[in-house]
Amino acid sequence: MDSILMIEKERPDLKDPVLIEGLPGVGNVGKLAADHMVEQLKAVKFAEIYSKHFPPQVLLDDAGIIRLVSNELYYVKMPEAAHDIIILVGDYQGLTPDGQYDLSYHMLEYARSLNVKRMYTLGGYGVGKMIEHPRVLGAATDEHLIEEMKEKGVIFSKGEPGSGIVGASGLLLGLGKTLGMEAVCLMGETSGYFVDPKGAEAVLNVLSAILGVTVDYGALRDKAEQIDALASKLKEAEEPAFSPPKREDLGYIG
Amino acid sequence: MDSILMIEKERPDLKDPVLIEGLPGVGNVGKLAADHMVEQLKAVKFAEIYSKHFPPQVLLDDAGIIRLVSNELYYVKMPEAAHDIIILVGDYQGLTPDGQYDLSYHMLEYARSLNVKRMYTLGGYGVGKMIEHPRVLGAATDEHLIEEMKEKGVIFSKGEPGSGIVGASGLLLGLGKTLGMEAVCLMGETSGYFVDPKGAEAVLNVLSAILGVTVDYGALRDKAEQIDALASKLKEAEEPAFSPPKREDLGYIG
Amino acid sequence: MDSILMIEKERPDLKDPVLIEGLPGVGNVGKLAADHMVEQLKAVKFAEIYSKHFPPQVLLDDAGIIRLVSNELYYVKMPEAAHDIIILVGDYQGLTPDGQYDLSYHMLEYARSLNVKRMYTLGGYGVGKMIEHPRVLGAATDEHLIEEMKEKGVIFSKGEPGSGIVGASGLLLGLGKTLGMEAVCLMGETSGYFVDPKGAEAVLNVLSAILGVTVDYGALRDKAEQIDALASKLKEAEEPAFSPPKREDLGYIG
Amino acid sequence: MDSILMIEKERPDLKDPVLIEGLPGVGNVGKLAADHMVEQLKAVKFAEIYSKHFPPQVLLDDAGIIRLVSNELYYVKMPEAAHDIIILVGDYQGLTPDGQYDLSYHMLEYARSLNVKRMYTLGGYGVGKMIEHPRVLGAATDEHLIEEMKEKGVIFSKGEPGSGIVGASGLLLGLGKTLGMEAVCLMGETSGYFVDPKGAEAVLNVLSAILGVTVDYGALRDKAEQIDALASKLKEAEEPAFSPPKREDLGYIG
Repeated sequence: MDSILMIEKERPDLKDPVLIEGLPGVGNVGKLAADHMVEQLKAVKFAEIYSKHFPPQVLLDDAGIIRLVSNELYYVKMPEAAHDIIILVGDYQGLTPDGQYDLSYHMLEYARSLNVKRMYTLGGYGVGKMIEHPRVLGAATDEHLIEEMKEKGVIFSKGEPGSGIVGASGLLLGLGKTLGMEAVCLMGETSGYFVDPKGAEAVLNVLSAILGVTVDYGALRDKAEQIDALASKLKEAEEPAFSPPKREDLGYIG
Repeated sequence: MDSILMIEKERPDLKDPVLIEGLPGVGNVGKLAADHMVEQLKAVKFAEIYSKHFPPQVLLDDAGIIRLVSNELYYVKMPEAAHDIIILVGDYQGLTPDGQYDLSYHMLEYARSLNVKRMYTLGGYGVGKMIEHPRVLGAATDEHLIEEMKEKGVIFSKGEPGSGIVGASGLLLGLGKTLGMEAVCLMGETSGYFVDPKGAEAVLNVLSAILGVTVDYGALRDKAEQIDALASKLKEAEEPAFSPPKREDLGYIG
Repeated sequence: MDSILMIEKERPDLKDPVLIEGLPGVGNVGKLAADHMVEQLKAVKFAEIYSKHFPPQVLLDDAGIIRLVSNELYYVKMPEAAHDIIILVGDYQGLTPDGQYDLSYHMLEYARSLNVKRMYTLGGYGVGKMIEHPRVLGAATDEHLIEEMKEKGVIFSKGEPGSGIVGASGLLLGLGKTLGMEAVCLMGETSGYFVDPKGAEAVLNVLSAILGVTVDYGALRDKAEQIDALASKLKEAEEPAFSPPKREDLGYIG
Repeated sequence: MDSILMIEKERPDLKDPVLIEGLPGVGNVGKLAADHMVEQLKAVKFAEIYSKHFPPQVLLDDAGIIRLVSNELYYVKMPEAAHDIIILVGDYQGLTPDGQYDLSYHMLEYARSLNVKRMYTLGGYGVGKMIEHPRVLGAATDEHLIEEMKEKGVIFSKGEPGSGIVGASGLLLGLGKTLGMEAVCLMGETSGYFVDPKGAEAVLNVLSAILGVTVDYGALRDKAEQIDALASKLKEAEEPAFSPPKREDLGYIG
């Protein structure tokens, strides 16, 4: 079996498309944002990616029909805008460093074949405490992108994030740069303790301004309220010696 | 050395065969069931599978003769039925995600070369407590299979198993679906603390109805009694603060 | 770089050679025995094996000259006997299951090119307590070997070792069997807490009878006395609550 | 994606170049020394090495521009000396044994294509206590190098380091030797608790004598003072039960 198995259901004819990536990660901010975008823009699925770099696992729908864990590509036609949109979402990132590189490189080569020249990767920036009004931090492959992003409210702050960016959101920029593609990473602040729809909304707020689309945040805000309620309960239950719940107990519920 | 080394002792001429998989897993339910089937149906071994994805280990028989750990394929001719049967059993599953994908994909390609169009994978569904009358839960690649399975007593229950199916029993469905093969996973409820012949009997009960074969459960029931006796002793010994024995202490005795 | 890099300094012309393997393992019994054999028989090194499957490490001699960790092949011409001898020794076994399979398979292919038809692999059988008079347990690829070995004092005992044989000493038998080579594994009983020259002497005692060679055990017995003295001191120091020293603290000093 | 991706910005025309390696390791001694050398000799970057064997990570500069983690090659033209200089520096070593071998072998093949015949690898020798005047220990591929190095003040001490040399500094010697290249490893003594500019100065002191270059140690000494101050504070804070800070808390700040 090849390391990566891509099933292209349709090869869309897209106008200067931009690629948006939102896979599981810190606070699941990127995944929540990209999944919400797919829903809001009624994006059309056109490719599935299976890989040895993912866990050997199938998921079940409510009826009991399985599907193999995967990444997926959607497109959105934007007749009034300069760029159509491709969105990369999925259940997992690659499990190993080798797998991460392999998957990101494969995605970049495929994106180039669709004429993608710019990418936005979405992620969370874990700060270790609850955040009421999350900022959106940025990183970019090229200087001119920084100016452009600052105008949209993205914050470029020296030393944040101090340890760089790990995973697909970083690699698509790093490997993309070696291939001459330009890209921006948008990171929503998040505690990192919970999946964080607030961080996702902050990221989408910036991204929708960049793309010129309108997004309704109703569903995200409902999720945020549920998470807040859960967090409050946990806090009460453990007072006075509150310690934040361990991340592995919460998992990704994107 | 290739990743997978298959030694085909015979290429059987089979009539529209179905493939049954039962490898080690939760409660060893799938392995117990498939091994019992091999014995009861006097299945004939026709291929051995060795692999770098298995542990570097040989096992010894009572005389001191070694054999390398492996998976094995057996067949059963069913002159009166519509389908002959192939059964996949073995000592181990692949040790890594990569190995799991590699082995399952290899098996699917081989099964296709034998004209297999339908598969039944057998496993356990760990529920974390002792079960007197285990249910058999199902998952399937296609909707029409669900109806067919419900008629045989298989339960499709929303949200069970919540985390999907991990390992060969899941992958054969997930990868098989991408290759156009249809398959069902049958999961016998089990505590997960012990190897569980009761879970295996429940699975076999359904499977034998599907295949139209008759199975004697004597040997499985003897094993179940031994396990029950062992569990009772452990429970007494540890009263009042009973904690279930750790799974790694029990191992797979399939 | 290839996974395995073999540097053949000489291609010896050998008469129906047998291969003896003694690499690090439980109590370092196999390594001690094979290294002692190399010394006693004044065996000649003819090939070095380097591999990605070994640690990325060089060792230093007393002067400060490095050598990359490796496995090595030696030969002994036996003018009066039916078989010349090849001995495989080394610093490490493969670090991963994949590496173990790769290295053993490579060795078997090379051995076949030298016309090896029989192998003896040497190892330790850890019993978890100090042993005054270690037995030598056996395992074999073929039934006729068992009779032959019993005559030399090798013990074939049902259920020992219960978990089979892990690593090169097992794989050379298991993979060799698929290639039609016959082989015996000789395991000296050992506590497993210390490197164990007594276990090595027991194994060599049997092996020298099989090969028709004479071995002086002086150096091994000196080592055994040192280990015994060390063990006694450790025991005194920790009385009354003696717990055996951890194996990782002792390392392999073969 | 290939395992290693090398981007050669320029193929320099060098006179009998020697290769110097200084990558992260014990006390970051080698990395500190090599990075300082690059700065002091105004070395010119001519190649970047990206690899699946590194973490899937990008780093950010102060403005927010990313770069993929990498190794880098610099050169220095030495018009008055017999040898030009190539310096290998970087963010990481390979994460796995396989990766270590792959990267070192690739580097050796590339160095040979640039006609490199001698290498100096730089590292730290962890001794587990604070060292006021670190010695520089040596290891070499060939005996004549040992005499040469002793004249420059390098110490060859039987049994130091007892466990050999692990990582790129060892492999370049070990694999290089199999390719007929000569090489020396220079190890500066270091506690191993902190990044250690003092160890790096000791190494550079020897290396600059070998290469016939002059190095200003101002910046390194400033760093050393900062580390000393930090160490004193930590010690006071934890008196009387001083335990050295864990290495993972300090990281590599090279």
